[in-house]
Amino acid sequence: MYGRYTQDLGTFAKDEAARLRLQEGDTPRPRRPSELLEYTQGRCAPCRVCALQCQRFLISKVGEDWVFLILLGLVMALVSWAMDFAIATCLQAQKWMYGGLDTNVLLQYMAWVTYPTVLITFSAGFTQILAPQAVGSGIPEMKTILRGVVLKEYLTLKTFVAKVIGLTCALGSGMPLGKEGPFVHIASMCAALLSRFLSLFGGFYENEARNIEMLAAACAVGVGCCFAAPIGGVLFSIEVTSTFFAVRNYWRGFFAATFSAFIFRVLAVWNKDEETITALFKTRFRLDFPFDLQELPAFAVIGIASGFGGALFVYLNRKIVQFMRRQKTINRFLMKKRLLFPALVTLIISTLTFPPGFGQFMAGQVPAIGVAHQSLPQGLHKPQLTPAHQQLTQKDTLVTLFDNQTWAKQGISDEFEYLGILEAWRHPRSNVFVTLVVFILMKFWMSALATTIPVPCGAFMPVFVIGAAFGRLVGESMAAWFPDGIHTDSNIYRIVPGGYAVVGAAALSGAVTHTVSTAVIVFELTGQISHILPVMIAVILANAVAQSLQPSLYDSIIRIKKLPYLPELGWGHHEKYNVRVEDIMVRDIRYVTLNCKYRDLQQVLHSTKMKNLPLVESAESMILLGSIERTQVGALLSSQLSPQRRLLALRQKVLSEDGHRLSDSTIRFQISTETSSGTPARPALRKPLKPALKRVPSSPADSPPAGSADHSGIALKNLFCANASTEPTEGVGNPDFSIRLGVRRTGGPLLTLVGMPYPLPCPMAPPQILEWEEQQLDQLVDFSSAKIDPAPFQLVEHTSLHKTHTIFSLLGLDHAFVTSIGRLVGMVSLKELRKAIEGSLTGKGVKVRPPLASFRDSTASTTEADTTALRQLWDRHQHHHMPREAGPGGDDDDDTPR
Amino acid sequence: MYGRYTQDLGTFAKDEAARLRLQEGDTPRPRRPSELLEYTQGRCAPCRVCALQCQRFLISKVGEDWVFLILLGLVMALVSWAMDFAIATCLQAQKWMYGGLDTNVLLQYMAWVTYPTVLITFSAGFTQILAPQAVGSGIPEMKTILRGVVLKEYLTLKTFVAKVIGLTCALGSGMPLGKEGPFVHIASMCAALLSRFLSLFGGFYENEARNIEMLAAACAVGVGCCFAAPIGGVLFSIEVTSTFFAVRNYWRGFFAATFSAFIFRVLAVWNKDEETITALFKTRFRLDFPFDLQELPAFAVIGIASGFGGALFVYLNRKIVQFMRRQKTINRFLMKKRLLFPALVTLIISTLTFPPGFGQFMAGQVPAIGVAHQSLPQGLHKPQLTPAHQQLTQKDTLVTLFDNQTWAKQGISDEFEYLGILEAWRHPRSNVFVTLVVFILMKFWMSALATTIPVPCGAFMPVFVIGAAFGRLVGESMAAWFPDGIHTDSNIYRIVPGGYAVVGAAALSGAVTHTVSTAVIVFELTGQISHILPVMIAVILANAVAQSLQPSLYDSIIRIKKLPYLPELGWGHHEKYNVRVEDIMVRDIRYVTLNCKYRDLQQVLHSTKMKNLPLVESAESMILLGSIERTQVGALLSSQLSPQRRLLALRQKVLSEDGHRLSDSTIRFQISTETSSGTPARPALRKPLKPALKRVPSSPADSPPAGSADHSGIALKNLFCANASTEPTEGVGNPDFSIRLGVRRTGGPLLTLVGMPYPLPCPMAPPQILEWEEQQLDQLVDFSSAKIDPAPFQLVEHTSLHKTHTIFSLLGLDHAFVTSIGRLVGMVSLKELRKAIEGSLTGKGVKVRPPLASFRDSTASTTEADTTALRQLWDRHQHHHMPREAGPGGDDDDDTPR
Repeated sequence: MYGRYTQDLGTFAKDEAARLRLQEGDTPRPRRPSELLEYTQGRCAPCRVCALQCQRFLISKVGEDWVFLILLGLVMALVSWAMDFAIATCLQAQKWMYGGLDTNVLLQYMAWVTYPTVLITFSAGFTQILAPQAVGSGIPEMKTILRGVVLKEYLTLKTFVAKVIGLTCALGSGMPLGKEGPFVHIASMCAALLSRFLSLFGGFYENEARNIEMLAAACAVGVGCCFAAPIGGVLFSIEVTSTFFAVRNYWRGFFAATFSAFIFRVLAVWNKDEETITALFKTRFRLDFPFDLQELPAFAVIGIASGFGGALFVYLNRKIVQFMRRQKTINRFLMKKRLLFPALVTLIISTLTFPPGFGQFMAGQVPAIGVAHQSLPQGLHKPQLTPAHQQLTQKDTLVTLFDNQTWAKQGISDEFEYLGILEAWRHPRSNVFVTLVVFILMKFWMSALATTIPVPCGAFMPVFVIGAAFGRLVGESMAAWFPDGIHTDSNIYRIVPGGYAVVGAAALSGAVTHTVSTAVIVFELTGQISHILPVMIAVILANAVAQSLQPSLYDSIIRIKKLPYLPELGWGHHEKYNVRVEDIMVRDIRYVTLNCKYRDLQQVLHSTKMKNLPLVESAESMILLGSIERTQVGALLSSQLSPQRRLLALRQKVLSEDGHRLSDSTIRFQISTETSSGTPARPALRKPLKPALKRVPSSPADSPPAGSADHSGIALKNLFCANASTEPTEGVGNPDFSIRLGVRRTGGPLLTLVGMPYPLPCPMAPPQILEWEEQQLDQLVDFSSAKIDPAPFQLVEHTSLHKTHTIFSLLGLDHAFVTSIGRLVGMVSLKELRKAIEGSLTGKGVKVRPPLASFRDSTASTTEADTTALRQLWDRHQHHHMPREAGPGGDDDDDTPR
Repeated sequence: MYGRYTQDLGTFAKDEAARLRLQEGDTPRPRRPSELLEYTQGRCAPCRVCALQCQRFLISKVGEDWVFLILLGLVMALVSWAMDFAIATCLQAQKWMYGGLDTNVLLQYMAWVTYPTVLITFSAGFTQILAPQAVGSGIPEMKTILRGVVLKEYLTLKTFVAKVIGLTCALGSGMPLGKEGPFVHIASMCAALLSRFLSLFGGFYENEARNIEMLAAACAVGVGCCFAAPIGGVLFSIEVTSTFFAVRNYWRGFFAATFSAFIFRVLAVWNKDEETITALFKTRFRLDFPFDLQELPAFAVIGIASGFGGALFVYLNRKIVQFMRRQKTINRFLMKKRLLFPALVTLIISTLTFPPGFGQFMAGQVPAIGVAHQSLPQGLHKPQLTPAHQQLTQKDTLVTLFDNQTWAKQGISDEFEYLGILEAWRHPRSNVFVTLVVFILMKFWMSALATTIPVPCGAFMPVFVIGAAFGRLVGESMAAWFPDGIHTDSNIYRIVPGGYAVVGAAALSGAVTHTVSTAVIVFELTGQISHILPVMIAVILANAVAQSLQPSLYDSIIRIKKLPYLPELGWGHHEKYNVRVEDIMVRDIRYVTLNCKYRDLQQVLHSTKMKNLPLVESAESMILLGSIERTQVGALLSSQLSPQRRLLALRQKVLSEDGHRLSDSTIRFQISTETSSGTPARPALRKPLKPALKRVPSSPADSPPAGSADHSGIALKNLFCANASTEPTEGVGNPDFSIRLGVRRTGGPLLTLVGMPYPLPCPMAPPQILEWEEQQLDQLVDFSSAKIDPAPFQLVEHTSLHKTHTIFSLLGLDHAFVTSIGRLVGMVSLKELRKAIEGSLTGKGVKVRPPLASFRDSTASTTEADTTALRQLWDRHQHHHMPREAGPGGDDDDDTPR
């Protein structure tokens, strides 16, 4: 984004543009003359011209967005469908195994427990080995990536493979895990890979901004093709990944998600699973009178309870992770045996759900009656896979929970029959309420625990199921309480518990993810929108409660994983309008001046950990000229103290000593300072740096530094003490005089002189090296080779916290300089902003209420580890600090250590 | 937004914050000691303390967002419901009139035509007189306002009243107009008024950023309570008003829109219109098999045709407006008789829809059979208002179009009965296809024409109805073509033409408005989501076609009204990634240097029309220090040449002449430059201005500038130049010597000297004034009193067009300076960006394809009229230009004109 623009990127873009223009000129144009020639000569030439134009047209279209989006949608629909198929097969295999062993309960138990354990362990091991980045949901990482942070290895083919296979195994095990979060990640990886693939045809896929846009669309596709919910998918992906959303991306998301959902459902039709395209979990609630106005309080209760439940889920999930990390003995043990934890968790959960055991109380086994399955609703995905004696799969559970009938005994009508998979909810020795309560309680902690397993998995679906069960519980209670409905008129409208289940599912998943678009998702999933107002009310209430208690699940994971984040501004925190940048900014910042010395750079690097250092005109004027990255400063410093330069100085020394012997040959050195920076500095950018350039000559011949002219002896010795760089530096000298240096990694210098018959001057001793370096540090810095961001983001002191937050999230900044008419007065980084929002005392004592105070303990600053090599270099200087006046004279004794 | 931050605003915010802190400290704290006293004394004191705390809590809550949003939702629901009621009454009155006169066709015609004409004319006249801003949809204006542009008088109470009453009358007339667009505007006005009202209780409603957020939520409420469609409302309002959307506003929108839709529907239930809360236009399509996969091509055809139709509608609408404007004779005539145009249009339309006349072919009169109305669907709003002999209202039309039955004769089943209001579509001498085609064609141009009437009206609803009719036409054709459905299996699933109507309505309204959220709106309106995929496909295709042909209706109006806008980046215009700021920026820009003279300011103002001028350090360094508004520069200049200063100079002159008389009293002058700027300049802000301040001393005693030391007479005169402020400047002198100045607005100086017994010196003659002004112009500018934006938005040369567009739309900028390491090198404004996007040749010859080329002729730059008074002042100087050397010396003759 803006503010990170470096000279390098600029020149890169320029080169790229030039290349593209050339390319465009290249591919079609050379053919033109021949075409025209053909046209004038042959008779079928018009056809050929036409064909060529068509071909060209097609190639040009490959680069267009809609082609990309259609391909993305298609691929993701296929992936989603294939994965569903594989998961269903896995589940079927388990059931077949379990069913085949019904003679012996112990064998049954073994089969029941071993199968998921093996699958989960394989999934965990596979992801661990291939790509550990594939672990977990992926939505937190996508949120971070869409903020502009580059996370390595998160969008590669390896991760894609690991995630797809790992997720299939994990879901095939029957654990309470979801595929929705991982699908967002899979779709994003798919988009990244696809754009890399398509860039072979067109050149437009390399642009960073475009990639971000495509990733945003991909997130929508991920949710869309997972639930066949294009609208809900787009909205959900916006809510969980973005702070500010470009409406033009929204478009792309809709297009791709619709296409993807369409193909996903068409595949089901083609596979004869369904007759036509309908919703995934179709419901059949009555349309005329979906609910009574007087039922609304019950829906509100569901919403509020779901809010608390959602917050509890997030809290529980985080506590489990933190407990595992904090308990050192557990942690150490688990680190050694990484696959033990997944296996253990799976073992516990599958033992508890074992149908003949405790599982019978949570919609597990149906004791005796094997009912026909013809009465199953059509919308059910693979209903034939569900024998009567089994635990319900997640999908079957949802279908039963959204069922139209009322399970509890209603008044006189006692003859209610549990049909088909509804059987699972009936228990001979208890009633449906007990089953539901046990189901909810057990599933709750199981899901919270299962989602901490290091396999690719999401928490949306488990939470959705729990919410549906809770809603159903409330609905059944209402139905038992008002057997003939609440309405007092002549018409009797019974209460529909299935509607409550829909409301509960939307509310709880909304509370856990802090989204309202779950409402849209349930409409698309059930194919009915008649409960829109109850759902919206419940979701909003659930969100209001959950947001005031806990961060969303994804934000929680972001903080656990210590990814960079910016907390949201809560509702109604007016204080944000009154706190201003000057209250929160860091005033005492380190800066680089245009006329500073290398020693100053060193000091600045020592004294601060900022990733970007401001470059000011001078310490007096403090006019901000730009910002320079820490790594750039480090590179400047290390290139100034580099062994190459030392070698050259030594070389220079030798030459001046042995000048009489070499007087007949011309000696020239060419070290281009630009080579070290990778890209040549452009003239336009150099202009303002004139003062710096005047002082440090940038001529091709790197004349020996003025300060070190008198210590030529030390310089000579230092010259051969190569330390930092391990690569042989070729082309240092000119053809007249070529030196080839090879440096052994162990530190001892290995010197090979080509075309030089003289005995080798021995390398400098450490003290001399230090002395030489001290001299180097006193030179003025030559910024011409550094990449300077010429327009870092600036704020003014009066900018409100609210506005600052907006700008930071809009532009994805991680720092901004505070200026006052060109003068640098301070700096604000994500850290300060985070502190201010989360409620630390600000500079002026304005206490900001912490919206997420309960969470502050796990907040840690994300400082970046410095490049250790550089660090050591500085440390050495710090400790072996040699006073300038100690040894100004040259010491010729090059072997004796002091 | 960022970049418009002025020093003034900053200090204002500071004062405001201080005030609030004081206030917070004031209201609750002074009571504390007494409370504690009471607590220790009385026994019921705890209750009182509790009550006080509750009161305080409630007051503190008034300032919170959710209270505001609930109030907004409530008010808007009431407004919407009341307006619907009034409109229904109006329509009923017309029908009653028409029905009562059924003895005479001529009288019937008179009544039929006069009634709407009177209503529309009244509406047009009323809005014209009270608030012309209320005319039209309001969405274009809201889009502009949400971009950060301040449109005057658009959010006032007057406009609110005009819009509500005007809209009620306009819709009550039965013309093909909609209430949706105006409702967005009404909701925004309501929010603005509400926040002004609530600011009486809390102080947090004054913040600009917050107001924008609340307006965004209000737009959602507007759509939400108009259609009882909270989700669609939020999405639609986002799509039509925003380019970048903050997800936190999305929240607010959902909350308020849901509440509003809820109340809106609850009112209907309480009014016994409905039994419970259901959708507005409830449909009853079958759930099991909503559509066949093989019907999808038909849906796609609807989408594509709607795309063309939508583009045609926008084109037609614009052409009508342009025709009216361009035809000078018509225009002149219409300008004189403003109410003639509305009356004429109404007359034509109502004549054509007269049921016994042509109206019978467009669902107008039903010849004979008066069928019972009990069979009407329940969801119908006010069905009892629809007698059989009437033209259908918009709502009734929609209900009939979405009907579940098939109108066309299907195979053998000839005995189909048109029931209730469905009668309207049957004509004895033609079939339903003819009726539908005539209806679509006539309504199409009628709607396009009617929406140009200068009354508050929207085009969404008419377009929606036309789309539904078109969809129905296709559906009926399909039903006639495949009487037993397409499906080849054993089950016969007949085609549901109502589903086609839903698809058509969403597609056409989506095409006209360039939104996809119309899909969500139809789901919420019909209460069924089973057709989600056909609707999404049709809407996306319609959008793709319409967007490539025409701008959206709202953008079209924005351009017609010449509001500032930024075109969207189209799909797949990769060139945007390669065009860069340096290709499009204006290099030859005027600037103000820190050490310039007033004469330079004058020249700059003459030579450019830029609203913001860059302030650079010097012409050599070109380091950008900030930007200064044009009006500020004008103010600086006019204060320097103000009559007050002239008067003071004169006064000085008199004093120096009469110095001998006053030699015994010490004379000191104190003019605080800070007083004139309204707020004291803060020391931190002043520092960077040091160079300027060195030249212009900022000590309390305003000593004469160094440059003009030789004209000490003039400098002394300058001393009394209390500038800019028209208020009497008190405290200018010290107690020794107090002068009170009053300036008559007419220009003639009025001098009041307090405590000074000398006779008034007569004003200068014009030549002397000119001479004096010439002297003034040669002084160095004192920027200390000017408001300088210390951090204007900066781009670098390499920023791509794409990124620039993003930043401009994100931050709502209208210009940005291009810098290169602090140096100003150019400027980009909305105009350049617009040009570059819309396809002018850029500097490097990169031809950008115009996405909206057909529309470019109506694009005009929106230059702002300068303050004429100031302009005249400069013009005078330009023409009467007097050379410096003509009269440097002071002229003592103050009465004689030259």
